[in-house]
Amino acid sequence: MDILKDILHDIKPTEVEQKELKEMSNKIINKINKIIKENPKYSVVIGVVQVGSTARNTHLRNNYDIDIFLIFDKNTDREILEEIGLEVGKKAVEELGGKYWVEYAEHPYTSAVIGKYSLDIVPCYKIRWGEKIISAVDRTPLHNEFLKRKLEKNKLCDEIRLFKKFLKGIGIYGSDLKTKGFSGYLCELLVIYYGSFIEVLKNAKDWKIGERIILEDIYKIYNLDGDFKFRDFDAPLIVYDPVDINRNVAAALSKENFCKFIFYASMFLKNPSKEFFYNYCEHVDKKLEDREYGALLTLKIKRDKDIVDDIIYPQMEKLQKSINKIIQENEFVVLRCDIHADGEFCYLSWEFLVYELPNIRVKEGPSIFKKDRVERFIKKYDKHFIKGCRLYAYTTRKYKNVYDLFNDIVNGNLKGKISYPKYVNPENGEICKMYIKSTIKI
Amino acid sequence: MDILKDILHDIKPTEVEQKELKEMSNKIINKINKIIKENPKYSVVIGVVQVGSTARNTHLRNNYDIDIFLIFDKNTDREILEEIGLEVGKKAVEELGGKYWVEYAEHPYTSAVIGKYSLDIVPCYKIRWGEKIISAVDRTPLHNEFLKRKLEKNKLCDEIRLFKKFLKGIGIYGSDLKTKGFSGYLCELLVIYYGSFIEVLKNAKDWKIGERIILEDIYKIYNLDGDFKFRDFDAPLIVYDPVDINRNVAAALSKENFCKFIFYASMFLKNPSKEFFYNYCEHVDKKLEDREYGALLTLKIKRDKDIVDDIIYPQMEKLQKSINKIIQENEFVVLRCDIHADGEFCYLSWEFLVYELPNIRVKEGPSIFKKDRVERFIKKYDKHFIKGCRLYAYTTRKYKNVYDLFNDIVNGNLKGKISYPKYVNPENGEICKMYIKSTIKI
Repeated sequence: MDILKDILHDIKPTEVEQKELKEMSNKIINKINKIIKENPKYSVVIGVVQVGSTARNTHLRNNYDIDIFLIFDKNTDREILEEIGLEVGKKAVEELGGKYWVEYAEHPYTSAVIGKYSLDIVPCYKIRWGEKIISAVDRTPLHNEFLKRKLEKNKLCDEIRLFKKFLKGIGIYGSDLKTKGFSGYLCELLVIYYGSFIEVLKNAKDWKIGERIILEDIYKIYNLDGDFKFRDFDAPLIVYDPVDINRNVAAALSKENFCKFIFYASMFLKNPSKEFFYNYCEHVDKKLEDREYGALLTLKIKRDKDIVDDIIYPQMEKLQKSINKIIQENEFVVLRCDIHADGEFCYLSWEFLVYELPNIRVKEGPSIFKKDRVERFIKKYDKHFIKGCRLYAYTTRKYKNVYDLFNDIVNGNLKGKISYPKYVNPENGEICKMYIKSTIKI
Repeated sequence: MDILKDILHDIKPTEVEQKELKEMSNKIINKINKIIKENPKYSVVIGVVQVGSTARNTHLRNNYDIDIFLIFDKNTDREILEEIGLEVGKKAVEELGGKYWVEYAEHPYTSAVIGKYSLDIVPCYKIRWGEKIISAVDRTPLHNEFLKRKLEKNKLCDEIRLFKKFLKGIGIYGSDLKTKGFSGYLCELLVIYYGSFIEVLKNAKDWKIGERIILEDIYKIYNLDGDFKFRDFDAPLIVYDPVDINRNVAAALSKENFCKFIFYASMFLKNPSKEFFYNYCEHVDKKLEDREYGALLTLKIKRDKDIVDDIIYPQMEKLQKSINKIIQENEFVVLRCDIHADGEFCYLSWEFLVYELPNIRVKEGPSIFKKDRVERFIKKYDKHFIKGCRLYAYTTRKYKNVYDLFNDIVNGNLKGKISYPKYVNPENGEICKMYIKSTIKI
């Protein structure tokens, strides 16, 4: 397909880029090895390996991320691993003339910038195939080993690139909790499994919820027979990790994004076009924005700069979901809602179909056959009447419009009724009469 | 119960009233008998009997209705029955100095006014117990015969009066299609069955939907044994007519009124009070009216004077129901709706919770897994998007407020989409921004 040739031409790292990256990677690895040899203290580091897409040449143009893993003997004390991991990392960066700082994941690790390259030096434990991990990062070198082996013989690297670009274009590349899409590792496995980018799409368009993918290699690696019962996962897509068959590589993929992928795969195959690869979701959003609107409201909450998206986004979702419940209880009607965060603020936005109601409400009561409940109901509600076989009553409304409801939220009057996530506190919110979504900024 | 004594004192016809009524009834019967004797043509009339509550002394004060049935031999030609029925009736009224006119039911009959009395002289066929009827009115003399026999011995007449007054007070006395309540005959049967007004209430408060009442007499009259399987009826209350066990005397009673009766029976027994007997439903309505309102709208349709309530009310209901469906399809929300008719107009009223919406609407589409439907949907709707596993689209609204919708109704633009009852034509409607219900007049 000509389109694919053009796109590849656009996204494949140039030869110069590839060459420079290789040189820098090697330079870093050599430096680390030298540091390790020079100090017996560092003998617990039994391996130094480059991992990640840039290690396997499956990265897109202008990706200057280099990931180096320091592999430690399994019996190393955690504290030692973390201490030495940072020491070696720091020393290497210093000697290479870069700037470093410490990032915190399962273990603290060295993050750095050397020229145009971003470098992570991460410690992990050595595990063998099938062995139980001590920390999640322990899998990474094995992922890398598996992929290198499978990618060695063929041109799958370019197919992987096209797949990643397509997913980026439709907004579902990335397994972080904001994106809920396809991780890089997942892309590589799928291309390996189906053989090419187009084959992935051709098969994906017929996927159903709960689609299971088991690479042939898994049977060989673990010596399993055909009726081995794999673990079940409650997920739309299940791709067993060759490194750990009790892990679903596609766990982060949301149901909606699974469906989006199937839909767009189908659309692209019917009408191949470059536009899918370049900000397609923004293009779609723009088309959807050309319309009339209901009442808009955004709750703008100051964001703690030190807390990452992977913590903030789930908390924003939780808060919005609990507010939606209150909105519904009060009989307002949401057309659409969104969450978005930038460096400074969290934005929870709503568009309302019904945002204002008369001060009269019908409360549903018990069936007239339930004597005790009837008695309690008519004691509580003076304006009761019978409709069908049930009692009802007229009551007033707590909120006549959504702004009153949101004022109560920011004034702390709904404490106990809505969730109060640790880093997205509704009482820190400010109400704006507009709508803010991920693709536009106000 | 003292209250009941007081009420009875208020509703029982005075002795003078009873005496005068008896005199007039006898006068009329004698006159009719004389007319029949004098003309051999009238020998097909084999019986003249007074029926109705005034014949049995189960009527309320100020009831001056006298009902006389002319019983014809079963073999009489229908035309003869109707012709002679009217002739005799007309002659009797003329000779008694009253005014008459012809009313039309199953047979035409003579309706008249003589002084303060309203008189109906109705022809029917003679049938024996268990015999099949030719026209519905044939049952009436047998109803009367049965009731007279049962009421003879005891003071049930006053109990019946109290029951009727109670039902009138709560607005469910009358088996016409507007009221959907208890007929007079039903009241008499229930009091006979339970023994007193209070006993009716005590038992009724425990009734359940589908309550079946079989008077003991029925087993005797038809010589049935204990496991006889009576006909099933899809009705909240089933009271088998001793005159025709395939007929449910309570057929006209709506589910809602059945429940209202149970509810008020229970309330009265807990807290006996006179107010139940005197316009209680209006009193309840007034209490319910003291509140804020949503948007009001009444469709006022000129009423054909010759068409009776029993035809008009079901047609108004049908029209309102079909309009409610359109209202709901357009996403407006009704709080309450009502129908009412006076001599001149039909009034279909609505109170809206949501009467106005922004010009944006979400159309639900197919699951993304249904390929053909997906294709058709995206061809039809440009502004489509995916949510969960489904396609949706933004569209505009046909109606931004309910008044536009109702304008379309009266302009005939919804022909084929709403019902067009013969005597309640929506195109004859006028829109008023108010609400009209049965107990208030604007």
